[in-house]
Amino acid sequence: MFSVALARGIIDVYVNVNVNPRSGGNAKFNMTLIPFEPKDAAYAERVRASFELQGAMKTLGASLAGVEPGQVVIELPWAQSLTQQHGFLHAGMVAAALDSACGYAAFSLMPADAGVLTIEYKINLLAPAQGQRFRMVGQVVKPGRTVTVAEGRAYAITDGREKLIATMSATLMAVTGREGIRN
Amino acid sequence: MFSVALARGIIDVYVNVNVNPRSGGNAKFNMTLIPFEPKDAAYAERVRASFELQGAMKTLGASLAGVEPGQVVIELPWAQSLTQQHGFLHAGMVAAALDSACGYAAFSLMPADAGVLTIEYKINLLAPAQGQRFRMVGQVVKPGRTVTVAEGRAYAITDGREKLIATMSATLMAVTGREGIRN
Amino acid sequence: MFSVALARGIIDVYVNVNVNPRSGGNAKFNMTLIPFEPKDAAYAERVRASFELQGAMKTLGASLAGVEPGQVVIELPWAQSLTQQHGFLHAGMVAAALDSACGYAAFSLMPADAGVLTIEYKINLLAPAQGQRFRMVGQVVKPGRTVTVAEGRAYAITDGREKLIATMSATLMAVTGREGIRN
Amino acid sequence: MFSVALARGIIDVYVNVNVNPRSGGNAKFNMTLIPFEPKDAAYAERVRASFELQGAMKTLGASLAGVEPGQVVIELPWAQSLTQQHGFLHAGMVAAALDSACGYAAFSLMPADAGVLTIEYKINLLAPAQGQRFRMVGQVVKPGRTVTVAEGRAYAITDGREKLIATMSATLMAVTGREGIRN
Repeated sequence: MFSVALARGIIDVYVNVNVNPRSGGNAKFNMTLIPFEPKDAAYAERVRASFELQGAMKTLGASLAGVEPGQVVIELPWAQSLTQQHGFLHAGMVAAALDSACGYAAFSLMPADAGVLTIEYKINLLAPAQGQRFRMVGQVVKPGRTVTVAEGRAYAITDGREKLIATMSATLMAVTGREGIRN
Repeated sequence: MFSVALARGIIDVYVNVNVNPRSGGNAKFNMTLIPFEPKDAAYAERVRASFELQGAMKTLGASLAGVEPGQVVIELPWAQSLTQQHGFLHAGMVAAALDSACGYAAFSLMPADAGVLTIEYKINLLAPAQGQRFRMVGQVVKPGRTVTVAEGRAYAITDGREKLIATMSATLMAVTGREGIRN
Repeated sequence: MFSVALARGIIDVYVNVNVNPRSGGNAKFNMTLIPFEPKDAAYAERVRASFELQGAMKTLGASLAGVEPGQVVIELPWAQSLTQQHGFLHAGMVAAALDSACGYAAFSLMPADAGVLTIEYKINLLAPAQGQRFRMVGQVVKPGRTVTVAEGRAYAITDGREKLIATMSATLMAVTGREGIRN
Repeated sequence: MFSVALARGIIDVYVNVNVNPRSGGNAKFNMTLIPFEPKDAAYAERVRASFELQGAMKTLGASLAGVEPGQVVIELPWAQSLTQQHGFLHAGMVAAALDSACGYAAFSLMPADAGVLTIEYKINLLAPAQGQRFRMVGQVVKPGRTVTVAEGRAYAITDGREKLIATMSATLMAVTGREGIRN
């Protein structure tokens, strides 16, 4: 439904937004990422290794669908085990995947010896989480030595059509030298 | 570690806070609930029936530990399937349980024909979610016909000692007459 | 520093981002607005008339720099009377202008007889609010009959260069038939 | 309407809540502060000196009504210059005072050479900010070497009666060794 062309090191970034004529004029926000320079060239391996350690992501049936410097995409299918009382995905489960997307987006820009912890996040649920699959996009807005701010968008996918269902803003902290927190 | 004496219909409410001498002078916030009048006498049954429908709560291993008008307590044990990469409970899982506690606290004050949806919430993670068990307390701050605001506190329990690990503020909406949303 | 070409009713929206070579590789997010249809053709007049009634905006020295369906821009100059202890703009003053931008973005899509109230907002301060002027952009993410979600970006302007200093997510409510709340 | 007896160094803290019989059974939350030990004995002077530097607080007509370790109270009268379009206090102005209360609550526990910056806050507006005077209470929930979490409550006062109109949760950062940020 939309594609973002990321062009590193050049001046102009173009974003094509193909408005679905059936979407009834709803708004679509784009997050255009001006590329970040990772501090650790092995950032993607670090993200993938850490992701594998998250029991919660296995429980969600979630997988890493994209790892770029400052941007991480996580996908998961609908499952009965993740629902709230109306059969939609539970807001907390949407948030868990979105929080991981934001956290790993931040983590991808941190130095090799840093771990990442979530300080806080806020999530706005825009529409019931109804769909066959869900795609969570986390992007860094402002990286920092200690504190990084990231934003997330959650999309529900039904028959190939995407619908924005939630937005998140999250504050992450880089932690170094604390036992047990290395990723 | 602390007890809240809820006294309905009287003028004074006393809160005893027994400071654990080993807690090192940390702050403890109390949320004192001045009792609300439920609109539906069968509020507790409605909360319990809706809770049973949440696949996500089964996945969390969560159970309802208390249902009062405007206050709901949810408990769950630590489980590998709920962890992030350091072995702590995943922030999103803490949030899922806390969101349900806040949501049902709001729901307990709604009329019999209303369903509840989360508009948004914000969570602050105060300490790593390390513990044997976890207790989530959701309380209504301001009920409303359409919009209700609730607050949550998450505690980690280790060897009987409680530690505040997260706070939440949540906005919930009462929904009536929308198909598929009855609880 | 960047310009957004809003094209109504066409398929593609192009966003040109001219990365300032001196900006050191910082991220820039763009919010591309797919146009909304206003319910009230006189939306801009309603926004302007309501804005004039805000004593707070006069105190901020703020002016309306743009009113589109679902998007409102507010600008203000730096002033000593708006500072915190380090001479930066006070976070609360940044938030006041940003909240108004988000609120009027929501208001621009509401029917003629509705008033707008802020339910909640969250603001992330990304950088000290240092600059000669400030530009606040509020945009609707998801309009609704009762509840509308909007997002805001605050930019500090120094010698013509813009810097993203804050992001906001806000929830607004349409209010009808309540005395004293008509705008 | 309620009084909080702060008792340092003792085991029990008692909170008397005198429920106004005319308040119609609304909820009242209490924030009971278990006393913190300030790192700097001159914490109150530091808070007062920094507050004096805030042009924004002068503009609000705000004054410091209480400074304790981890708790700060700010008061201000209603003024036309602080209103939104319905004549209520502008949400942003409520937030500015509440943010300062939270920020100085955090600052009161920081070492003598630290400055304080707001990372983020979220505010829930519970009722229109109608009243003769307003009282903002900021309290630390979790102090930290780098990051401190605080909560705020805003009350509108009319004819001696207090009404909870807003709640805030805020994340503050201690900053040392950065030029221009010493308070």
